Amino acid sequence: FLVSLHPYLLAIARASSTGATPSEEMNGTGNLMDFLDEPFPDVSTYEDFHTIDWLREKSRDTDRHRKITTKSKESYWELIKSLLDAWSGWVVMLLIGMLTGTLAGVIDLAVDWMTDLKEGVCLSAFYYSHEQCCWTSNETTFDDRDKCPQWQKWAELMTGHSEGAGAYVLNYFLYVLWALLFSFLAVSLVRVFAPYACGSGIPEIKTILSGFIIRGYLGKWTLLIKTVTLVLAVSSGLSLGKEGPLVHVACCCGNLFCSLFSKYSKNEGKRREVLSAAAAAGVSVAFGAPIGGVLFSLEEVSYYFPLKTLWRSFFAALVAAFTLRAINPFGNSRLVLFYVEYHTPWYMAELVPFILLGVFGGLWGTLFIRGNIAWCRRRKTTLLGKYPVLEVIVITGITAVLAFPNPYTRRSTSELISELFNDCGALESSQLCDYVNNPNMSRPVDDIPDRPAGPGVYSALWQLALALIFKIVITIFTFGMKIPSGLFIPSMAVGAIAGRIVGIAVEQMAYHHHDWIIFKNWCRPGADCVTPGLYAMVGAAACLGGVTRMTVSLVVIMFELTGGLEYIVPLMAAAVTSKWVADAFGKEGIYESHIQLNGYPYLDVRDEFTHRTLATDVMRPRRSEPPLAVLTQDSTTVEDVETLIKDTDYNGFPVVVSRESERLIGFVQRRELTVAIKTARQKQDGVVSSSVVYFTEDNPQVAEACDPQPLKLRRILNLSPFTVTDHTPMETVVDIFRKLGLRQCLVTRSGRLLGIITKKDVLRHMAQMMNQDPESIMFN
Amino acid sequence: FLVSLHPYLLAIARASSTGATPSEEMNGTGNLMDFLDEPFPDVSTYEDFHTIDWLREKSRDTDRHRKITTKSKESYWELIKSLLDAWSGWVVMLLIGMLTGTLAGVIDLAVDWMTDLKEGVCLSAFYYSHEQCCWTSNETTFDDRDKCPQWQKWAELMTGHSEGAGAYVLNYFLYVLWALLFSFLAVSLVRVFAPYACGSGIPEIKTILSGFIIRGYLGKWTLLIKTVTLVLAVSSGLSLGKEGPLVHVACCCGNLFCSLFSKYSKNEGKRREVLSAAAAAGVSVAFGAPIGGVLFSLEEVSYYFPLKTLWRSFFAALVAAFTLRAINPFGNSRLVLFYVEYHTPWYMAELVPFILLGVFGGLWGTLFIRGNIAWCRRRKTTLLGKYPVLEVIVITGITAVLAFPNPYTRRSTSELISELFNDCGALESSQLCDYVNNPNMSRPVDDIPDRPAGPGVYSALWQLALALIFKIVITIFTFGMKIPSGLFIPSMAVGAIAGRIVGIAVEQMAYHHHDWIIFKNWCRPGADCVTPGLYAMVGAAACLGGVTRMTVSLVVIMFELTGGLEYIVPLMAAAVTSKWVADAFGKEGIYESHIQLNGYPYLDVRDEFTHRTLATDVMRPRRSEPPLAVLTQDSTTVEDVETLIKDTDYNGFPVVVSRESERLIGFVQRRELTVAIKTARQKQDGVVSSSVVYFTEDNPQVAEACDPQPLKLRRILNLSPFTVTDHTPMETVVDIFRKLGLRQCLVTRSGRLLGIITKKDVLRHMAQMMNQDPESIMFN
Repeated sequence: FLVSLHPYLLAIARASSTGATPSEEMNGTGNLMDFLDEPFPDVSTYEDFHTIDWLREKSRDTDRHRKITTKSKESYWELIKSLLDAWSGWVVMLLIGMLTGTLAGVIDLAVDWMTDLKEGVCLSAFYYSHEQCCWTSNETTFDDRDKCPQWQKWAELMTGHSEGAGAYVLNYFLYVLWALLFSFLAVSLVRVFAPYACGSGIPEIKTILSGFIIRGYLGKWTLLIKTVTLVLAVSSGLSLGKEGPLVHVACCCGNLFCSLFSKYSKNEGKRREVLSAAAAAGVSVAFGAPIGGVLFSLEEVSYYFPLKTLWRSFFAALVAAFTLRAINPFGNSRLVLFYVEYHTPWYMAELVPFILLGVFGGLWGTLFIRGNIAWCRRRKTTLLGKYPVLEVIVITGITAVLAFPNPYTRRSTSELISELFNDCGALESSQLCDYVNNPNMSRPVDDIPDRPAGPGVYSALWQLALALIFKIVITIFTFGMKIPSGLFIPSMAVGAIAGRIVGIAVEQMAYHHHDWIIFKNWCRPGADCVTPGLYAMVGAAACLGGVTRMTVSLVVIMFELTGGLEYIVPLMAAAVTSKWVADAFGKEGIYESHIQLNGYPYLDVRDEFTHRTLATDVMRPRRSEPPLAVLTQDSTTVEDVETLIKDTDYNGFPVVVSRESERLIGFVQRRELTVAIKTARQKQDGVVSSSVVYFTEDNPQVAEACDPQPLKLRRILNLSPFTVTDHTPMETVVDIFRKLGLRQCLVTRSGRLLGIITKKDVLRHMAQMMNQDPESIMFN
Repeated sequence: FLVSLHPYLLAIARASSTGATPSEEMNGTGNLMDFLDEPFPDVSTYEDFHTIDWLREKSRDTDRHRKITTKSKESYWELIKSLLDAWSGWVVMLLIGMLTGTLAGVIDLAVDWMTDLKEGVCLSAFYYSHEQCCWTSNETTFDDRDKCPQWQKWAELMTGHSEGAGAYVLNYFLYVLWALLFSFLAVSLVRVFAPYACGSGIPEIKTILSGFIIRGYLGKWTLLIKTVTLVLAVSSGLSLGKEGPLVHVACCCGNLFCSLFSKYSKNEGKRREVLSAAAAAGVSVAFGAPIGGVLFSLEEVSYYFPLKTLWRSFFAALVAAFTLRAINPFGNSRLVLFYVEYHTPWYMAELVPFILLGVFGGLWGTLFIRGNIAWCRRRKTTLLGKYPVLEVIVITGITAVLAFPNPYTRRSTSELISELFNDCGALESSQLCDYVNNPNMSRPVDDIPDRPAGPGVYSALWQLALALIFKIVITIFTFGMKIPSGLFIPSMAVGAIAGRIVGIAVEQMAYHHHDWIIFKNWCRPGADCVTPGLYAMVGAAACLGGVTRMTVSLVVIMFELTGGLEYIVPLMAAAVTSKWVADAFGKEGIYESHIQLNGYPYLDVRDEFTHRTLATDVMRPRRSEPPLAVLTQDSTTVEDVETLIKDTDYNGFPVVVSRESERLIGFVQRRELTVAIKTARQKQDGVVSSSVVYFTEDNPQVAEACDPQPLKLRRILNLSPFTVTDHTPMETVVDIFRKLGLRQCLVTRSGRLLGIITKKDVLRHMAQMMNQDPESIMFN
C-alpha cells in the first residue's frame, strides 16, 4: 500500500520495510499500486485563501529531488533531465530578470511619452516624448534644450498662439482632460479585467510569500492589466509611483515562469523562493539598485529566504538591471533613476539638520499611515467604497487642477525628485539654481554657486512649500484607490521637497553668517558651502523610511544612487531617526497596516511575542466548546467519517487510539480523506457505509472476520504530526509556527490529545494580546 | 513553589494560577520562595565544549525583558533603567565599531612600519614607514617618490654602500633575519599566552555562532595576543593575510563589550547576535566595505541572523569603517584597501577570459583545500604537530629566502595586489606599465598605454609567473600554522597575478590583431584596448570564491572596491563559475573543511539532507543498547537519582509516568537536578537517600503519609520538552534542529517515550549518510 506521492507515505514505506534500499522499495511498490497515483490528482494543492504547510512542501520537494537523482542513474536521457532540472532555477531567474527589465523599460518609455502628451505633442513623430523630440531635432541649441519647433503645446497646435491667457487656459483644460482620460481608462481596466491589479501589491505579496494562497493575484491577466494601467495611472499625474507596482509586476513574471517548470509550479514552497527573487528584480529595476533590491526582498518582503535564494535573487536583480540598461529608457546609459554626484563633503554639525529631517520623516510616516488607514477603513465601511471609478475621477480632477499652476507639481514626480537631488552645476538652468552672480562682489566668484540666493530661489521656495502641502494631503487620499499605486515616489517627493527647503536655508545661513563658529570653514572659495541636493536626498530617505520602516535596504538603495560611501552616515542617521520616531507612534509600517486592514493571516517575523500565555490558553476546543472532532484508529465507520466531513469544515482530523484513551497516533488531511473514501467507494468492492475505517498498521484477522470489507487508510495518515505539550509557552509556539511555517499543531499532555492550534488561532491570540480586533483576521 | 528565574517555572506558574494577571503572580510568589533564587546561581550557564539551547536562551531573554517592562512601571528610575537596557544593544555596537576600527588602524600602521623595517629604516624618525618617511621629506620629487635620503636600506646604513653584491647579500640576510625574528616572536607569544590566537579563527567563530561553547576563544588574552601576533605574522612576510584574523579580533571585541551588559553576558543567544554584528564590523574594516561585511556575516559566518541583527551589524560596520577612516592608515582618506578606478568599458567577448579565470579560481580552490587539509591532517597525526615553533621558523625561512629575489614577492602581498589591480595611468612608474612609447608610431599616441608592451612588461610577466607558482605552493603550507593567518589576501594574490597575466595577454592580442573580428572596435584612439587591472580583480574574486565559496558578499565587497556597477557582471560571472567548478570537486569551502577536520559539531545551514531515514533510525538507545535512562514521576528515590547522575554523563533525563507505561511528562536538566538535590539535602529537613522524588503536580496526602520527607521537584521539570514521533522523516528533524537550534529532542509514539535524539546524533547520522568518519565529531 505504498505510493511515492507523499512524504508521509514514504515514511511508512521506510518504516515497514527497514533494511530495503530506497530504489528497491520504489521498484517493488511502484507497480503494485500504480492506480493509487491517479485518485490523488491535486492532493497537494491548496484551496484559495488557505495557508500552505512549509514543512510539507519542503518534504515534497526533497522527495521529488530524490526521485530524479535515483532515476538519473538509469539512463543518459534521465541524467540530462536531472541536470536540466538542477539548472531550471537559474533559467527561471534569467527569464524573470529579462522580462522584468524589459517591462520596466517599456513602462518608463510609455510613461515619459504619455506624461508629455498631457502638455503637447511632437510633430516629427507623435510617439516621441518632449525630450526625445527635441533631442533628435537639429534646430535645438544647448541653451534652448526645452524649446524646439517640433514640440508644440496643445494651444499652439490648435490656435497657433503659444502665449497669453487663452493659450494658458486651453493648455490647463487639456492637461486636466488628458489626466481624467488616463485615470478613467486605468480604473475601468482594473475594474473590468483584473481587480487584483490595484494598489501597490506589496502587502499582498508579503502575505503570499509568508505562505498564503490568493489565486489569480499573480496571474497573467493581472500582469498584463497592471502593466498597462500602471502606465496610465502614473501618466495621469496622480500622486503615486511605479516602484511598488513594479514589484508586483516582477512577481507576476516570476509566477508566469514558474508555470514552465513543474519543480516550481507544483510546489508552493519552491514557488515562493522564485517570487522572493522576483521581488528583488522588481526593486532592482525600479531604482537601478540590484543590491538594494536583494536587501529589500530580504528585509521587507520575504518570509523564507535561504542562502540559495540570496544568490538567485542577486542574479535575477543583475539580469533585470542590465536588461533595463540595454533598453536605456533614460537615454543616459545610467542604470539609476536619480543619478547624482556631489562634490562637497559634509560637516559634523550638519548632522543636526539631517536628524531633524529624520524626525520630520518619522512624523510624516505616522501621519501618512494613520491618515491613509483611516481613509481606507472609511472606504471599506461607507458608501465611498461603492464608487471606486468616481473616486478616482474626483481625485484625479482635484490633483490635475491643483497641480497645473505650480511648475513643481505639474511635471512628473520623478523629474521633480531628480531636480531636487541635483547639485547646482555651472550649466544648470533650474530656477532653484538662480543664485546672484555679480562680478563686482567681494567674495570670489566662480562657476559653483557659493553665492547668495537670487529671486528665483526665493520664488522656488514658495512654490516648493505649496507643493509640499499639496503632496502631503493628496498622497494620503491617493494610495489605496482602485488603480496601481506605489508610494515610494510620493514619499520621496515629500522628503525631497522638505529636505531641499532645509538645505537652501542652511546654505544661506552658512553663506550669510560664515563668521559664526559653527559655520567656520564651511564656505571656501571655489566650493559650495553645503549641498542642498544632499539634504533633499536625506529627506527623501527619511520620509521613505518613516512610511515603510526600511533601514538597511533603504540606505543601500540610496548608496547605489550616489555611489559614494561618504554620504552613508547622513542617510543612516536620518533613516534610523525616522524609524525610531515613527516606531514611537506605532510599530507597523504602511504595508503591515494594510495587511492588518485587509485581515490577511500574516505572521510577522519582526513582532516579538512576549506575553506569558501557554499553548493550553490558545488551543481549541476551549473549555465551553464541544470536544475536538477526531477519528479513531479502528472503530470509525465510513459513514461516520462522511458525516464528520459534511458537518465540519476543518482542514484535517487527528486520529487517536480510542475515544477513551485519546492517545494521538496521527493526523489525516480532509482533502485526502475525501478523495480516498470516494475512490474506495467507486473502485474497491465491499466498501459500504458501515465499513470500518482502519488506520492501524496491519490486522488482517479483523479484516477477514468482519462482514463489510474494511477500508484501510493508513497510507494517508500523517504519522508525524507536529505536537507541543499544553504547558509550552506561547512564545515558543509562535516561534515554531514562524520558523517551521506550520499550518497547525496538535496539543498533547503525556501523549493524550487535548486540542489543536492553527495559524489562525495563533494570529487571533496575538491580536488579542495586542488589543486589536481579533475578528478581522481572514479565515485560513 | 515558583521562581521567575526560568521560563519553565513561569510556565508552571501560569498553569497553576490561570486567571491571575502576570503582575499578581509575581507579587504573590516573589516573597514566598525567594530563597529559591539563590541555589541556582549558574543554572543557565553551559559547560565548555557544549551546545547551547537556542529556544531556551530566547525564552530566558523574553522573560528578562518582561521583568524589566513590568518593573519599569514602578518608578522613574526603573523606567530609565529599562530604557538604558533597550539602548544597550546600540551602545555595544558603537563600542565594537570604534574599538574594531581603532585596532584595524593600529594594525595597518604597525604592519606598514614593520614590513618596511625588514628592508631599512627611516633616519628622521625610526617609527616612520618607508612611505611616511619619504612623504614628510622635503627633498623628494614626484619622480623619485621611492628614494629619499632619510630612508636608508640596512646595507647602506651599516656599510655606506647602497649598491653592489655585498650590499645585496647583507640586505638579503637582514631581510631573512627580521622575518625569522618576527615569526619566532609571533609563534612564541601564541604558544605561551593564547593558544586560541592561532589560525584565521573563522571556522571556530562559525561554530561558536552556531551555538557551541569554546571558553576563552573570544577572551581578552586572545584579543591582545592575536592583535600583536597578527602584526608580527603579517610583517614577517609569510603568505598570509590579516582579514580572517581581523574578524576574530572584532568578535573578541564584541565578547569584551558583551560582558559590560548583563543582557548579553548572561545570555548565550543574545551574545551570539552581538558576535554576528562584530564579524560584520571585522570584514568592514578589513576591506573598507561595510555592506560587504554585513553580507559576509549573513552569508558566511552567522547562524541565527534576525532582522534586528541586520540593522545593528550595519551600524557596527559603518562605525568601524568611519573610525578606520578617521585614523586614515593608508594616508589617502580612502576607506578601501584597494581603491581602483577603471576608465574603459568591457566587451561581451571578454566574458570568455573572465569565465576561464573563474575556472582557474575553482581549480585553485579545490587544490588549496585538498592540499591544505591533507597537510593539516598530517600535522595532527604525525610528529610534525609536536614542533609548531620549528615549523613556523622553517616555513618563514623558506618564504623569506625565496621571496627576496623577486620584487613581486618581496613587498607585502597587499601592495602587490594593489599594483596588480591598478590601471596603467600616465604617471605610473611600475614595470607593468612599461609600454613602448614611440612618437613615430603609426597609431596615435597619448598618455594612455594603447601600445605594444615593452621589455619591462615581459620581464614582469616572468617574475609574476614565478611569484604565482611560489604563492600557490607556500600558501598551502602556511595556512593552519600556529600563528594568526588569514587566507583572503594570499588567495586574492594568486588570482590577481593569474588575472593580470591573462589581462596583458588579451591586451597584446587585441592590440596586435585589432583587425580580427572579435577585437573589432576594442582599440580606439585615446583609450585602452582592455583593462588588465580588471582581469586581476576578476581573478582575485574567482580565487577567493573558489576557496571560501562566497558569492554575493564577495561580489559586493569587490563592488565596494571599484564603486561601479559596470564591473559587476564580470565579477559575478567569475565568482559563480568558480563556485560551480569548485563545488563539482567537493561541496565544502575551506572553513567547513577545517570545521570538519577539527570535528566541531556544526550543523551547516546549507547542507541539504535528502536521505530517507526516520527519527527511529537515529534515536538512541539503538536496539542492542540498554534502555534509556529515565526518571519516573513518583517512584524514584533520591538515591536512585544520585546513582543515575553518577553513572551517566547525559545532559538531562526524561521523566515518565511510570516504567510500565513510559508516557512522557517532561525533561529535567542534569545540572538543575544536581543543584536541587544538593540544596534540598542541605536545607530541607527530612530529605534522605530514601526520600521519594516527586515530579507530579500536587499530592500532599502521599507526602504526609510517607515517613521520609518527599522531595518535590516539579519546579525544575521542563513540561514542554520538544518531541517528534518515531515516524518523522529525518529531513524534518534536521530542519527542526537547524531552525529552532535545539540541543535534544525526544522521540515518542502515541505518547510513549521511545528514545532521544541529540544534536550530536543528528550530526553523526548526517556524516554517516555522507560516508564520512562519524567518530570525528567532538562530543557535545
